[in-house]
Amino acid sequence: LVVRHAQVFRDKQNINVLTGHCVETTNPDKQTVAGSTTDGKDFEFPYDRLLIATGSSAIRPEIPGVDLAGVFVLKDLDDGRKIKNFLKNNNVKKAIIIGMGYIALEMCESLVNLDIAVDMVKPNPVFLPWLEPSMAAVIRDGLESKGVGVYAGHVVDRIQTSSAGLQLIGPDLNLTGDMVLVGIGVKPNSRVADSAGLELSIAKSIAVDRSLKTSAKNIYAAGDCADALHIVTGAKTWIPLALRANRAGWAAADNVIGKNAALEGVAGTAVFRVFDFEVARTGLNLEEAQRAGFDAVENTIQSSSRAHSYSSSRPHPIWVNMIGDKKSGRLLGVQMVGTEGVAHRINAPAVALQNRMTVARYSQTDLAYAPPFGPTWDPTLTAANQLLKKM
Amino acid sequence: LVVRHAQVFRDKQNINVLTGHCVETTNPDKQTVAGSTTDGKDFEFPYDRLLIATGSSAIRPEIPGVDLAGVFVLKDLDDGRKIKNFLKNNNVKKAIIIGMGYIALEMCESLVNLDIAVDMVKPNPVFLPWLEPSMAAVIRDGLESKGVGVYAGHVVDRIQTSSAGLQLIGPDLNLTGDMVLVGIGVKPNSRVADSAGLELSIAKSIAVDRSLKTSAKNIYAAGDCADALHIVTGAKTWIPLALRANRAGWAAADNVIGKNAALEGVAGTAVFRVFDFEVARTGLNLEEAQRAGFDAVENTIQSSSRAHSYSSSRPHPIWVNMIGDKKSGRLLGVQMVGTEGVAHRINAPAVALQNRMTVARYSQTDLAYAPPFGPTWDPTLTAANQLLKKM
Repeated sequence: LVVRHAQVFRDKQNINVLTGHCVETTNPDKQTVAGSTTDGKDFEFPYDRLLIATGSSAIRPEIPGVDLAGVFVLKDLDDGRKIKNFLKNNNVKKAIIIGMGYIALEMCESLVNLDIAVDMVKPNPVFLPWLEPSMAAVIRDGLESKGVGVYAGHVVDRIQTSSAGLQLIGPDLNLTGDMVLVGIGVKPNSRVADSAGLELSIAKSIAVDRSLKTSAKNIYAAGDCADALHIVTGAKTWIPLALRANRAGWAAADNVIGKNAALEGVAGTAVFRVFDFEVARTGLNLEEAQRAGFDAVENTIQSSSRAHSYSSSRPHPIWVNMIGDKKSGRLLGVQMVGTEGVAHRINAPAVALQNRMTVARYSQTDLAYAPPFGPTWDPTLTAANQLLKKM
Repeated sequence: LVVRHAQVFRDKQNINVLTGHCVETTNPDKQTVAGSTTDGKDFEFPYDRLLIATGSSAIRPEIPGVDLAGVFVLKDLDDGRKIKNFLKNNNVKKAIIIGMGYIALEMCESLVNLDIAVDMVKPNPVFLPWLEPSMAAVIRDGLESKGVGVYAGHVVDRIQTSSAGLQLIGPDLNLTGDMVLVGIGVKPNSRVADSAGLELSIAKSIAVDRSLKTSAKNIYAAGDCADALHIVTGAKTWIPLALRANRAGWAAADNVIGKNAALEGVAGTAVFRVFDFEVARTGLNLEEAQRAGFDAVENTIQSSSRAHSYSSSRPHPIWVNMIGDKKSGRLLGVQMVGTEGVAHRINAPAVALQNRMTVARYSQTDLAYAPPFGPTWDPTLTAANQLLKKM
């Protein structure tokens, strides 16, 4: 267990934590779970309420060589320890990362900061495809300026050992490094739910309602294994992020003990840092908005994270992309890239989405201003004012 | 003029800018303004629409010695230039600041950064009286740790010159310094409106409606001289800050030319930095909430501006005070103090206020999380969760 030992749960909270027990079958009619222990014994337990909180797992590509020594995924603490050990015990001068999402980029920064050269590779030729193209180009330029090789649009067919280290081979790819990290996303651990006949949802996550109830009586699911409602589209989505997982855990526990807790949904608000840049988003991007049936209009502005009057050694550009619905006037999504002041700035539009605000009403919000922290008009307000002209 | 020369307005925008013209009387019935020029000529002009954008002025205390050389207010660029010149031409080792508000504290930081010792003095014994007391104490401790003398609760009766410099004398006060800065707030420049019989409002600001119309036909007012609606109380307020002034200017111009623009109001969202601390607020504090008739409950939490898992050389505490209405459940206000990550964090609750969200709904908002930028639960969410227990 991560935060505390199983024994603490047993002694202090009177929770009968059974590690080494793998649930193989769940019977929603009998209300039992059954399986076997790591030392080969079978078990069967009855339940009044069952909570499935199985999380998600790192996706491993099904290619030859993915199990070679020196090839790692990064999902849990143990993965992190293995990577740290490998770095300590090997003279790693060059790493190859398969994938270019949040985790892959965060791993890239960590390795470059350890003076390790990094190449990144993925099949999709579009870098950060969910991000507005000119803003994605800013991040890509930043990566390349740090010496990172960005191989977007290249398939890896196999990993093999060569005299020079680990070799990644593809139709138009031949990269060699001392270690390989795989960061191509996660999948929900929904096997237990699936085998019990529970309804699955987007990406095979477990379908739950606002109260975290699954399709089966007295069975709840919470965390990365479960789906959620998207507050902009109102439709089911699967965006496994920490805050929602944490919040769903509390709400499910409340419901299990008979309190009534219902969650509103997620906006897909997320932020990550990669080298000099903070990258954040909330709500829908243009493609998602169009696919959801909105009459989407978008605009991108460049502003500054501080007032021009405030003396500063370097400029702090900030780019804001904003999407609105021409028909209803609603704000649908915001993306932001900048060298500072991005991470918390995304939260104001996130709250606006939760309230189904129009772009016009958002443009009227009373946001804080002081020269060290931004221009008089917060960049998200300028973005709203400019987007309104297109709406 | 500040941003561009009057001649540029005349040549490029075809705007007949008349500097050196002081309006003395306004006749709303005849629709004329009249007055005299700096070279002694009288003028009278007719208008179709009149916009009063006279701003605000620094308040000067009516005490003997306030006009002595070395005593300054800080409101406009010219004040700033005078202070800079005085600092350049005099060996200022010690400054005394009358007042302890935003501007006074920002001036204090600037002077201390120039290695000038600073004492601050004001009659109210309570330091930052609008701020939750334990949070105000954090700022006061910070000031005192920088060697700033904080004389709250001391009246200044007069300023006089002595052999040691400028001397501030009061019943229980005797401070000496090389210069004196007065930062005790501003007052609206509403003389023109008042003499024309226009309705005045809070603090003698000019009463305007959502469209910036005054009580007189075809006369608008915008900027620091005009009042506003408070979005939490729905009542008139006067909070002269840059964003509202700027926004009101645009809206008044739209209305003058026949477009229909209406402003929602202000939340009093504000932020300032003083030494290591960022201080921010939005909405009402406890006393204001009680005075407005709410059944106000408050709670203060201490959180961290970054995740505990994120390696950092020093802790980054952040304090959040949150006020809710027990009867309606509404969020009424938030205050925040911290060493980083405060300025933009205040904007999420500001948007919540604009939407009259309850504390419970705010606690469900999907805010961004990544270890470099905050804990999984944003401090404002933790504050909401904790406040809910009291509601």
